[in-house]
Amino acid sequence: MKIIDKINDKLKRGESFWSCEFFPPRTEEGVENLFERLDRIASYGPLFCDITWGAGGTTADVTLDIAKRMQNMVCVETMMHLTCTNMPVEKLNQALDEVRAAGIQNILALRGDPPKGQEHFETVEGGFSCALDLVRHIRATHGDHFGIGVAGYPEAHPDAIVDDPEQMKENYWKDVHYLKAKLDAGADFVVTQLFYEADRYIQFVKDCRSIGITAPILPGIMPVMAYGGFKRMTGFCKTAVPAAVAEKLEAVKDDDEAVKNLNLERSVVGILEGVGLLDTANVPRSLPWRHVPGGGQRAEERVRPIFWSNRPKAYITRTANWDAFPNGRWGNARSAAYATLTEHPFMRRHTGSDKRRERAAAAWGEPKSVADVAEVFVRYCSGDVGVLPWAEMEELHRESGTIKDQLVELNRGGYLTINSQPRVNGVPSNDATYGWGRPGGYVYQKEYVEFFCAPDKLEALLQRLGDSPSVTYLAVNAKGEMRSNTDGEGGANAVTWGVFPGKEVEQPTVVDPVSFGVWKDEAFGLWLTEWGALYEEGSPSRKLLQRIHDTWWLVSVVDNDYVGGNLFKALGV
Amino acid sequence: MKIIDKINDKLKRGESFWSCEFFPPRTEEGVENLFERLDRIASYGPLFCDITWGAGGTTADVTLDIAKRMQNMVCVETMMHLTCTNMPVEKLNQALDEVRAAGIQNILALRGDPPKGQEHFETVEGGFSCALDLVRHIRATHGDHFGIGVAGYPEAHPDAIVDDPEQMKENYWKDVHYLKAKLDAGADFVVTQLFYEADRYIQFVKDCRSIGITAPILPGIMPVMAYGGFKRMTGFCKTAVPAAVAEKLEAVKDDDEAVKNLNLERSVVGILEGVGLLDTANVPRSLPWRHVPGGGQRAEERVRPIFWSNRPKAYITRTANWDAFPNGRWGNARSAAYATLTEHPFMRRHTGSDKRRERAAAAWGEPKSVADVAEVFVRYCSGDVGVLPWAEMEELHRESGTIKDQLVELNRGGYLTINSQPRVNGVPSNDATYGWGRPGGYVYQKEYVEFFCAPDKLEALLQRLGDSPSVTYLAVNAKGEMRSNTDGEGGANAVTWGVFPGKEVEQPTVVDPVSFGVWKDEAFGLWLTEWGALYEEGSPSRKLLQRIHDTWWLVSVVDNDYVGGNLFKALGV
Repeated sequence: MKIIDKINDKLKRGESFWSCEFFPPRTEEGVENLFERLDRIASYGPLFCDITWGAGGTTADVTLDIAKRMQNMVCVETMMHLTCTNMPVEKLNQALDEVRAAGIQNILALRGDPPKGQEHFETVEGGFSCALDLVRHIRATHGDHFGIGVAGYPEAHPDAIVDDPEQMKENYWKDVHYLKAKLDAGADFVVTQLFYEADRYIQFVKDCRSIGITAPILPGIMPVMAYGGFKRMTGFCKTAVPAAVAEKLEAVKDDDEAVKNLNLERSVVGILEGVGLLDTANVPRSLPWRHVPGGGQRAEERVRPIFWSNRPKAYITRTANWDAFPNGRWGNARSAAYATLTEHPFMRRHTGSDKRRERAAAAWGEPKSVADVAEVFVRYCSGDVGVLPWAEMEELHRESGTIKDQLVELNRGGYLTINSQPRVNGVPSNDATYGWGRPGGYVYQKEYVEFFCAPDKLEALLQRLGDSPSVTYLAVNAKGEMRSNTDGEGGANAVTWGVFPGKEVEQPTVVDPVSFGVWKDEAFGLWLTEWGALYEEGSPSRKLLQRIHDTWWLVSVVDNDYVGGNLFKALGV
Repeated sequence: MKIIDKINDKLKRGESFWSCEFFPPRTEEGVENLFERLDRIASYGPLFCDITWGAGGTTADVTLDIAKRMQNMVCVETMMHLTCTNMPVEKLNQALDEVRAAGIQNILALRGDPPKGQEHFETVEGGFSCALDLVRHIRATHGDHFGIGVAGYPEAHPDAIVDDPEQMKENYWKDVHYLKAKLDAGADFVVTQLFYEADRYIQFVKDCRSIGITAPILPGIMPVMAYGGFKRMTGFCKTAVPAAVAEKLEAVKDDDEAVKNLNLERSVVGILEGVGLLDTANVPRSLPWRHVPGGGQRAEERVRPIFWSNRPKAYITRTANWDAFPNGRWGNARSAAYATLTEHPFMRRHTGSDKRRERAAAAWGEPKSVADVAEVFVRYCSGDVGVLPWAEMEELHRESGTIKDQLVELNRGGYLTINSQPRVNGVPSNDATYGWGRPGGYVYQKEYVEFFCAPDKLEALLQRLGDSPSVTYLAVNAKGEMRSNTDGEGGANAVTWGVFPGKEVEQPTVVDPVSFGVWKDEAFGLWLTEWGALYEEGSPSRKLLQRIHDTWWLVSVVDNDYVGGNLFKALGV
């Protein structure tokens, strides 16, 4: 979706909004860290996120890769920066085609900084000389497809900053008129250069309006994180720094602890909370899972199996080539084949690098018995262990917190839980914990829990579950043997739904036997690829996990009585 | 659906069931009366209904027509009787093709009685001589497509009844073995000839089982309705009548009042209630509207617009040629065009015959003012008037009864209501008033009311409705001018839904602007074709109704807050 449309929608409703800008890291580990951070930031509900463009093209490929994953895996509306710097037209066109194909619809069109070691900008052979050219080119080649942002300079462009006040004034106004030209050429909105003097921004907006600029002008803020970086950036951009800020920074510049407190993510979240733009306890969600933004074939996606709810990226990857998404009726998706996940980085989240293996090994130890394994699950549910092979994000779903004690009990009893949700009987759709979708609706959940179960416990368990008339279950082992009490009526069971004014009932999460059969390969596989692989061939831990993989059952249980049921009682907890 | 499958399903669940047999009337008025009766019987939930075959083919076409309407309009699983009597093979084949095309899947295969004035059965040139031939022929030409019932004779076939006890015994067993031959040839189940000695039926079933007949054997009962008819039928069939029954009948044979109490429909319902097969206050419904039984393209029908809920036959007619029914998402149906209703008998329900015109005129009088018209609506809602142009059935939906007082008030206030439902917030799916679908679920309704509104009242009304945040409305006049507060988001609004164990959420009734636009032509048209047409051109009543047609608005209002809303308060009642 175009960011300008999202902005206008917010303005219409009188709601505030915010976005975050990231730059491409230099190492692979840095990229992984960026995505963990992006995942958390995305959960706070930014309107969009930017990724900056590697000057001179050195990190252009990385930027493109990150932008694609931001849009389609992290599921945040992404604006990719694009600069003319050292970029021949063919390369620009190629980049535009690529982002378009990836579903990214927003570009920040920039001239760009000169490459390292070069003081002034130089036009390359066949390249553009300014952002205005780039805006014109994007509109000429892609029409209205892209949303285009452009940069505004409340203190004028650094190249235009001079000592002579008269000349400075002239340069400043030249810049403001140049901004108007970029908007007149087809740009949608403005993001400003960073500033620390709020009055300069306010005056800049007034000046822009005075010459007929009507587009939204978003203030650009860089949190102060480290003394050195702050000095470098404000120096490079020739940014005015208020005396009070400068003094405070000078005072702490050698204080390691104080500098450490300026952690990037905490700074951003702190600023947002401080100005009242973020209520982390109450972030609206459009669906219970994060919808892939933008157009394309996924725009109509309205339902997902619950099994992947802790591994959404794996799900997106495996369904990336689907021609059509279930159009309200899950049944339609049955013909769509799930792709395998073998080649994808999310498949080897804990064993993909030495650093990751170390972290995972520290978390999970060297289990010698089923009790040791169960203890890892207990500690994960209790919050003492942050990672588990069956979750991409390092935390339990916030809503599972309300059934934490029961989950801990289940794991103590040897049922190793990997997914769950409590029952919800019609709470308002803006409920802080369970709410999703627009306000004015009511949301519902059937209680759900999914766990691995030792083969010698299976019969007694299924018998107990069979005695609860409102419970339906599916159980499967790695060989594909399936047990169920749904009596051949194996359609989709909606386990999360919402009723909204003027709408059909939304049913975004289902349990169904067909995708359970696909999921079980992934779920069992993780015992080996993500956990067992940490230990040497033939070692007791590896043998133990292999035995669990080979003989245990994966059990998915729904209590269909969302009004008065008690699934954990049915499970004997 | 094959009746044998429905029977087996009932047997599996340990549930009892019943069916009704009708014969084709001789007059057009008789046919209309039959359908009114069928409609009421169908609402009690028979497993299926039979229509008998006109002996000698004299009423064969009528039988075929009635069978088609029973199956596809009354929406009751239909078994058509088919006899060999005087029927050449070509005619039989033609009849089979025709019923198959009409979605009727059940045939009772009979030899048939000899035509009037002929004492004994005669095989026609190229025809069959017995029901066994007919069963074989159906299976040979249509494979397993049809469900086939055959007749059983607890007292032996009338032709086989003789005075000599030894010969009688031999004839009886010959009959039983002949029945086995019909079942071995492919028939699914047995319906017996009428009887009044229960012991004879019990012995007959035992005898059948003793020679290896395993098929269900349904007892055939003819209620005693009139002394003459009873004597005629039992004489014709040579049926044994218990002395106690015969004595009681002789005692009342000249008592007109007693005979009148033996009214056909009341007898049937009385018997069913007497033996505990029918609880009229609690008939299970599979959906809030009556699903067309059988296979074919309508089998997947799961959603209908609320507008036609009092005119289901009109809806079925207008959608009879749809290639695909909305498959869970109402949106899919938008491309399907509604057929016009001009030529169909349901379009002229109150003006189609002199008798009907008389009844309608008696009910509605000759209104001279809007107040007179409103009074008709008030009396309809109060139950004092049984018919209204906008309802096919002569009664308010039972569930509207709970908001009867508010509807009367609305009509008193000049809002002439034609459709409504109260709000329901999750009552069990087997609730006597609101329940539908399988047990163990919960059903919901958004409060709904639809009415005609004078043009001078519209603005104030819409303003009041607009002040209720949970209310959405559509208003349209005969010219097609539309008013709405759904703000361009004109998708389908699910107003009835149900949540069931192991299933997707069912959403069988919706409000949507596209079909509202189609419905309004029908709804406005009924002022003229069904009501105005009763009065002479130029008469005050006709002019009045024409003016209402030309200038009033049809308003459809939903209160989306099914948890705590109050639509009638929003309407000012």
